Amino acid sequence: MSNIIYIATSLDGYIADRDNGLDWLFEIPNPDDKDFGFDEFMNRIDALVMGRNTFEAVCDLDCDWPYTKPVFVLSNSLDSIPEEYRDKAQLLGYSKVKDAMSHVVSGLNTHGFENLYIDGGITIQGFLQEDLIDEMVITRVPVLLGGGSPLFSDLDMSQTFEHIETEVLLDAMVKSRYVRKR
Amino acid sequence: MSNIIYIATSLDGYIADRDNGLDWLFEIPNPDDKDFGFDEFMNRIDALVMGRNTFEAVCDLDCDWPYTKPVFVLSNSLDSIPEEYRDKAQLLGYSKVKDAMSHVVSGLNTHGFENLYIDGGITIQGFLQEDLIDEMVITRVPVLLGGGSPLFSDLDMSQTFEHIETEVLLDAMVKSRYVRKR
Repeated sequence: MSNIIYIATSLDGYIADRDNGLDWLFEIPNPDDKDFGFDEFMNRIDALVMGRNTFEAVCDLDCDWPYTKPVFVLSNSLDSIPEEYRDKAQLLGYSKVKDAMSHVVSGLNTHGFENLYIDGGITIQGFLQEDLIDEMVITRVPVLLGGGSPLFSDLDMSQTFEHIETEVLLDAMVKSRYVRKR
Repeated sequence: MSNIIYIATSLDGYIADRDNGLDWLFEIPNPDDKDFGFDEFMNRIDALVMGRNTFEAVCDLDCDWPYTKPVFVLSNSLDSIPEEYRDKAQLLGYSKVKDAMSHVVSGLNTHGFENLYIDGGITIQGFLQEDLIDEMVITRVPVLLGGGSPLFSDLDMSQTFEHIETEVLLDAMVKSRYVRKR
């Protein structure tokens, strides 16, 4: 059972720019439309967990629905998933208590969702604060955004990881995989 | 003429932990005492520019003086360089005006110091804010510190870089070289 981050970030650690935009991600020419292992990764996981912000951003993307696995949207403010997405995503209410993400994980694990793709800045930060992230695949895009939504936030304790592999994509992006050392 | 960053950072972008410590940098076993290209880099540059904090941290390091080139210490509060370091470093006062770092650079260039190693968080941030960094060599250490002294700070505009090369060091650290695209 693993909780995994798979995300792209600027060199200064932002996952979206100040206007919540992702254009900087798509500025590197990708003539062969490579997916950089995303499909393979999608096959490894059983479900996605993301916050409302990320869910709504994905809904707004000008492309087909990118996920082939069930998506659980963490939200206390959303009443329901918009009708056109109900076959793709479901709401997961949670209490803002200590260990909230830990309860989310055990609930999903109980239902057979063992390997979880954790997505979105606030959700990732919540998981890291409870030391629940087992693996991180981080792709560094060669730009300094200078502001925006940060990938990481403060932690009570440092967390060490083991470097597994690094790959350079399109002569531009550096994708590294890390596993938590416990 | 180039202004170059050459620095190690945690995965969450800190160059020193909350106690201003660097122990996390030296926790990865380096049995052959490799320098990862530091000497070669030192041969490329003509001088170093760093702030007072970094200078004092280097003075406190329990090792020989690590630099073979002149060190210019930016400070408005330091009266003088301690006597034992006067053959290694000199004070460089500067005015806290717009384009302050640009004036520092042109002064040093005029004196024949063309390729500058820019070191220390605040100094690096000042150079980036004036878009004066031409090259960055960033080594990512596989740890989340969760807090400390950040490498980067806010910028008015984003800055794109070209990825030149990436190398994995000791199966653990990922060292990438980037050149500013202008």
